[in-house]
Amino acid sequence: MRILESIWLDRNSRFTLQEQLVRQIKEYVQQERLKRGETMPSTRELANELKLSRNTVVYAYDRLESEGYLESRPRSGIVVSSSIFLSPHSKWPVEAGPTPKPASQSAPRTPLRSPAPFRPCQPDVNLFPLPIWNRFRGRILRHDGRGLLQYQASCNSGVPELRENLAGYLRDSRGVKCDWRQVVITAGSQQGLFILANLLLKSGDRVYIEDPGYVEARLSWRSVRAKIEVGAIDDQGLTLPRGSSHRFSLIYTTPSRQFPTGVSMSLPRRLAWIDFASRTRTWIVEDDYDSELRYSAPPLPSLQSLDRNNRVIYVGTFSKLLFPSLRLGYVVVPENLLDEFEKLKHLIDDHLPLVDQATLAAFLESGAFFSHIRRCRKAYAERQALVLELFRKSDLPLDFRYTDGGMNLTGFLPLGTDDAAWSAKLRTAGFDVPPISHYSVRNRAPGLIFGFTAFSPAVIRTAFDRASKVLQGCARA
Amino acid sequence: MRILESIWLDRNSRFTLQEQLVRQIKEYVQQERLKRGETMPSTRELANELKLSRNTVVYAYDRLESEGYLESRPRSGIVVSSSIFLSPHSKWPVEAGPTPKPASQSAPRTPLRSPAPFRPCQPDVNLFPLPIWNRFRGRILRHDGRGLLQYQASCNSGVPELRENLAGYLRDSRGVKCDWRQVVITAGSQQGLFILANLLLKSGDRVYIEDPGYVEARLSWRSVRAKIEVGAIDDQGLTLPRGSSHRFSLIYTTPSRQFPTGVSMSLPRRLAWIDFASRTRTWIVEDDYDSELRYSAPPLPSLQSLDRNNRVIYVGTFSKLLFPSLRLGYVVVPENLLDEFEKLKHLIDDHLPLVDQATLAAFLESGAFFSHIRRCRKAYAERQALVLELFRKSDLPLDFRYTDGGMNLTGFLPLGTDDAAWSAKLRTAGFDVPPISHYSVRNRAPGLIFGFTAFSPAVIRTAFDRASKVLQGCARA
Repeated sequence: MRILESIWLDRNSRFTLQEQLVRQIKEYVQQERLKRGETMPSTRELANELKLSRNTVVYAYDRLESEGYLESRPRSGIVVSSSIFLSPHSKWPVEAGPTPKPASQSAPRTPLRSPAPFRPCQPDVNLFPLPIWNRFRGRILRHDGRGLLQYQASCNSGVPELRENLAGYLRDSRGVKCDWRQVVITAGSQQGLFILANLLLKSGDRVYIEDPGYVEARLSWRSVRAKIEVGAIDDQGLTLPRGSSHRFSLIYTTPSRQFPTGVSMSLPRRLAWIDFASRTRTWIVEDDYDSELRYSAPPLPSLQSLDRNNRVIYVGTFSKLLFPSLRLGYVVVPENLLDEFEKLKHLIDDHLPLVDQATLAAFLESGAFFSHIRRCRKAYAERQALVLELFRKSDLPLDFRYTDGGMNLTGFLPLGTDDAAWSAKLRTAGFDVPPISHYSVRNRAPGLIFGFTAFSPAVIRTAFDRASKVLQGCARA
Repeated sequence: MRILESIWLDRNSRFTLQEQLVRQIKEYVQQERLKRGETMPSTRELANELKLSRNTVVYAYDRLESEGYLESRPRSGIVVSSSIFLSPHSKWPVEAGPTPKPASQSAPRTPLRSPAPFRPCQPDVNLFPLPIWNRFRGRILRHDGRGLLQYQASCNSGVPELRENLAGYLRDSRGVKCDWRQVVITAGSQQGLFILANLLLKSGDRVYIEDPGYVEARLSWRSVRAKIEVGAIDDQGLTLPRGSSHRFSLIYTTPSRQFPTGVSMSLPRRLAWIDFASRTRTWIVEDDYDSELRYSAPPLPSLQSLDRNNRVIYVGTFSKLLFPSLRLGYVVVPENLLDEFEKLKHLIDDHLPLVDQATLAAFLESGAFFSHIRRCRKAYAERQALVLELFRKSDLPLDFRYTDGGMNLTGFLPLGTDDAAWSAKLRTAGFDVPPISHYSVRNRAPGLIFGFTAFSPAVIRTAFDRASKVLQGCARA
């Protein structure tokens, strides 16, 4: 076993010591410098010899055992595996050896980024009470024991406690009419839209959407080859189709706060849409992505709450309120669609991870959720006021019309302005400020969308200083 | 504010004290027994008055504020909101009040179940080192800070560190040929199959599958209206189509351990399939759900490792090795499909939750993953041996032919036996032992599938005692 003394570990390598150890032992086995059946030194001996922590060697041996290079034998300890040679598979044309990865093929080490100012629709994750969340997580894991680690057929549409707490919240805060069984938890609202597209539409069906509007929703309808028709946005929200004798299969709208313009749909317009949907037997998908974040008044009741004919499907998300990488959204599914919806959901991913869902259920039930919303609302209202004040003091030709809440402020530009060019200039300077045209099918009013929620007042001030110079340059050009 | 003295809290109610408090304050506001602008008692006062913990009142106030019933005013403290009445929305036909939920509509409180013996394909979650996992989770949250809570476009196909560690593991342990960029993390292997169905198949395309075989895979192919053709399983695995002049678009197989029979595909059969796929330009989807769990020899190299023409798409999962509710699987996507695969994945759920993925990456990198596999393999090998021994000592007409590993033992019954009837009898007695016919399209060899991995030896012994009596009853009938 003197061979092991020739192992050479590079403490500056980007490979861990354990990985280097594994690779070298494998090589020795393949070169038969370590013979089958040969006894390996104990983990303690090897650790001493190589000046490694004992755990490093234990894990390396475990790995070599799990890959069949080593095996445990009663009394002899760890030996070089015999089956790795005797197995019929050793003759297979397989490159079983360790192929050192060239550095260029490695994944980047630090891919995590914070959003650049003024990226829209991003919550400030620093406001999220992670220690409280983790405490709830620990508590439910202790309380529910290992049950939450199992596959649970009863959770195909979400953890029941979460669905119930959420249903109560939606009823109370937005008048959503629902039984908890109608609340299906999805992987973000995106999955909700994808399922609805596949459930409600077939190739050639006509879908009426907001223009400008949310791009990923449009892509969902397109993915099933639906025909897209766009409706303009006026001061009251999405306009109804004019003189169209066509029947639509689905209307997609963001009535609480139209994305990206920020218009709140008026009551008369809401009632007109409800009437339209019931007369023409069309589904309305109501995407209510941030109605909690209204600063001057309580959240608006939902379109779904006005509808007595079950034509409105309500879609929501926790990404905007808690943190985006949680990836939990929900759909309030009309009862007659529920079976089909759940069947498709099951086919797409069986069920979602349970521990986060159960944690969220406890977070909602405890009230910590409401404290968090209140805290966010306060911080975001201040940030919004700050952005508006900074723009007011500047003489930039941006018109902020809809400012009653949300995560973004949309500044309209004079007609004819090339908003994409402005946005590109900002991007070059390190800002993430998309133009309205990015969200548009037909070109309408140009403008820029400033998200303000993810950035502290200090960051907003500094960023505004620099960004306003870029914008002044654009305005002069 | 004497009104608040009339609040009555029922400590035996199934509603929390906080919830009762919120509901009653809302009622008083709606009945205008609490007038707009009226100052509420401080949380401390109210907590004292009602003998509640202060946090209960703080959370209740937060909730009432977030729903617009109360508001904070500088100097006056918390007051009854004026906007809730002045808002134009108060006239809306919305039932904004709290509707107490009838008990019958409530979600069940304890829906979590452990699998009944001998449910197939379930790991023993008690073997999972949850404290170690949680330690890694805490460490990466401290290390990566809040970045992991953000939306990360770079993680659309999975956290890069996880993809890289996984690629290395698949290369080393199963000869899978891949660059880390080809490894896409999915919500369980189920999502991988769903995406592949939508990507590779269109209505009417022909798919060749194993019979008996994995039902959820068949449902995925069916969901895009593909035509299903079934191939029988012999001692060497999935048989090739006989005299078929048709072209297939996709072959689905579980070569390492055919589900549910347990046959390992032989080398000649593997080479024949590789040849078939390359000649007919057909995709092979290799579902390698549990090849780590081989007890008599190292894991088998994959079909993908034999293929030089990039016709094999390798699908795997962590559900079987770690815990099912984690819902993380992966697909090794051929490079020419990668763009389209990622685009569809993005449409389905944008990206998966990041914290679990980053934790898994650290778990893999540390070697704790390998220790866990080794521990499982040891425990499962013992349990398998025990089940085989118990059956050998009985005189039940069950023939266990394929026993080199996995999570299940399939006992074949004499031809003509109604395995569904046997399974139903077992189910009545509290056992979860599906019949082969459940997985079959055409009826072939009958049998019963016994999972053994989720159950301790003690549970196996007790369950076997009872189950064997049921089986003896079936055999005599």
